Amino acid sequence: MPDHTRPPEKRVTIYDVAAEADVSPSTVSRAFSRPSRVNSETADRIRRVAERLGYRTNPLARALTTSRTRMIALVIADITNPVYAEIVRGAQEAATDGEYTTVLIDAQESDRLERAAVERTMSTVDGIVLASSRMSDSAIRMVAKQRPVVVLNRALADVPCVVTDDPRGVRRAAEHLGELGHDHITYVAGPQASWPNGIRWRSLLEAGMELEIKVRQIGPFSPTMAGGERAARELCARPATAVLAFNDQMAIGIIRGLSRMGVNVPGDVSVVGFDNILAADIVTPGLTTVAAPLYAEGSAATRHLLTMIAGAPGHTGRPMVLPVRLVVRDSTATRNPGPGRARRQWARNRSAPDPAAHRP
Amino acid sequence: MPDHTRPPEKRVTIYDVAAEADVSPSTVSRAFSRPSRVNSETADRIRRVAERLGYRTNPLARALTTSRTRMIALVIADITNPVYAEIVRGAQEAATDGEYTTVLIDAQESDRLERAAVERTMSTVDGIVLASSRMSDSAIRMVAKQRPVVVLNRALADVPCVVTDDPRGVRRAAEHLGELGHDHITYVAGPQASWPNGIRWRSLLEAGMELEIKVRQIGPFSPTMAGGERAARELCARPATAVLAFNDQMAIGIIRGLSRMGVNVPGDVSVVGFDNILAADIVTPGLTTVAAPLYAEGSAATRHLLTMIAGAPGHTGRPMVLPVRLVVRDSTATRNPGPGRARRQWARNRSAPDPAAHRP
Repeated sequence: MPDHTRPPEKRVTIYDVAAEADVSPSTVSRAFSRPSRVNSETADRIRRVAERLGYRTNPLARALTTSRTRMIALVIADITNPVYAEIVRGAQEAATDGEYTTVLIDAQESDRLERAAVERTMSTVDGIVLASSRMSDSAIRMVAKQRPVVVLNRALADVPCVVTDDPRGVRRAAEHLGELGHDHITYVAGPQASWPNGIRWRSLLEAGMELEIKVRQIGPFSPTMAGGERAARELCARPATAVLAFNDQMAIGIIRGLSRMGVNVPGDVSVVGFDNILAADIVTPGLTTVAAPLYAEGSAATRHLLTMIAGAPGHTGRPMVLPVRLVVRDSTATRNPGPGRARRQWARNRSAPDPAAHRP
Repeated sequence: MPDHTRPPEKRVTIYDVAAEADVSPSTVSRAFSRPSRVNSETADRIRRVAERLGYRTNPLARALTTSRTRMIALVIADITNPVYAEIVRGAQEAATDGEYTTVLIDAQESDRLERAAVERTMSTVDGIVLASSRMSDSAIRMVAKQRPVVVLNRALADVPCVVTDDPRGVRRAAEHLGELGHDHITYVAGPQASWPNGIRWRSLLEAGMELEIKVRQIGPFSPTMAGGERAARELCARPATAVLAFNDQMAIGIIRGLSRMGVNVPGDVSVVGFDNILAADIVTPGLTTVAAPLYAEGSAATRHLLTMIAGAPGHTGRPMVLPVRLVVRDSTATRNPGPGRARRQWARNRSAPDPAAHRP
């Protein structure tokens, strides 16, 4: 029998209750967190002992011992967008390393569905990564008050965030197009509720100012291949020689839509995407794009979330910024065919049998 | 004060306990399911009343009133495989229609991770759809004993299943290749733990027998583009003129791998995939493939799961079978170039400016 005549200032722990009730600490834990899993007489005895000893479950201790589910939720904007596949993989491997299971929630590009799903799952997970949330800042803050939260692809001052260096990526894309002789870039906008969409457009405005390239915006369009095909029709009505799309899926839709209307990419129009999804390398012509470190995004956000779940304070104030790079493929070319373009074309024709090399 | 001197044969309900303890029925429910949300004195009083009245929570009542979370889990084999995106969408829309939230679990092609994730999430969801499970039949049966389960892309006698008509799809692919003059088809196998992988190979064996086409199998390879590229190297060592790949991702990898080694698709080798993912239409040459009704698969499985959660018996014995169709694109051609092929080539050249039309 343990000595429970200790001085009153000493905190009563779960171990004291367990020893006094002659059960294991995990049984005490379950008696409070999941009483249906404990024999009801035992649960009653544990409760009586706990009351007598003055045992109080404190929030941290509860988090550590009772309510922890070892599950985290990763909320993504749209599962049909392959950009999330690598983010999910990065998050999952970090979670698995920490012995956590990841459940995924697909917000289907809807702030309403996202909120409903987060509210429903919140109580069953220990923390949440919001990747490309379509919720308002205030809705995100509400969630962050109830569970550890890390936000991906968005900056909020008071919630830990991981973002990519989109301003630098846009700047590199604009420089690349400028070097190819383009003096006008059309930004094809994605969802207005998307934080990176705003950043990418503002970054292009700034880059255009510095590089003396005119910029304009069309859209918003759905951030899908179908959205890109619709944008292609609008581009035909208001011609452009260089296009920066919100993401790769739209850029691929633009290439396909333009091709169908007899406009050659890159001969007539250069197209740049954002993300570097696998399809950017499969489409013909191969898509020039700003490559985001997708795996690292998921991994960094999740690792940080796990430290928060373990009790560390969240890193707030400034977001963690991950680097990007421009991947130049065949969807961009000089504005007017000249010696430079002829040289590239020649090199391309020599590199058979890659079918991508044989586009017109 | 209610009369609780009723004859003993009358079941004590949650309403009796609520009236006796002077609380609402939902408080009684919470006292048993989530005691941390109920004032501890109230919870104690409710337990004492329940014990005195002889109240027993029965499984169905619990399911209906306390433990239902209005969440279902959809377990997929690999989130990086775009085949699941449409399945997920179908499942989600059916779930949303039924006012359910879907959480996704990515098994990462691992039966171990799949089991661990299912075990962890099981208690937080009302039912589970297993899409392309990598678990053993007995593991699936264990899960199905604890929660309503519908299995997708796999047939088990005692658990409700939804499958696609793969034998017919394979037969159509073999007929198509036979008509093009191929007398030998190589099957490039996917994961051995994949149920459709076995079905597709056996269906090809049968079709080959009937159509007098020789068949052989190589693999297994990872069901990814990288797996397909590895298969392409093996195909070069043991040449084939016609290939049926386990899925589209592998088929695209095979096309890319062969092209890189100077083998022309479809000139030297015809390639057929399975699934009809978006990339099958993006790759050059466009991939001939067996199109599965992905959205309908997710939707049918989920609708059936919701009826089971609502109390209907699961449809067991025979799986629900959904139809497939062969989508012919440009990755298949006659075994030796002849008038037929020349005609197709000519038609293709006229259909400019689609860049896919300009491959060699």
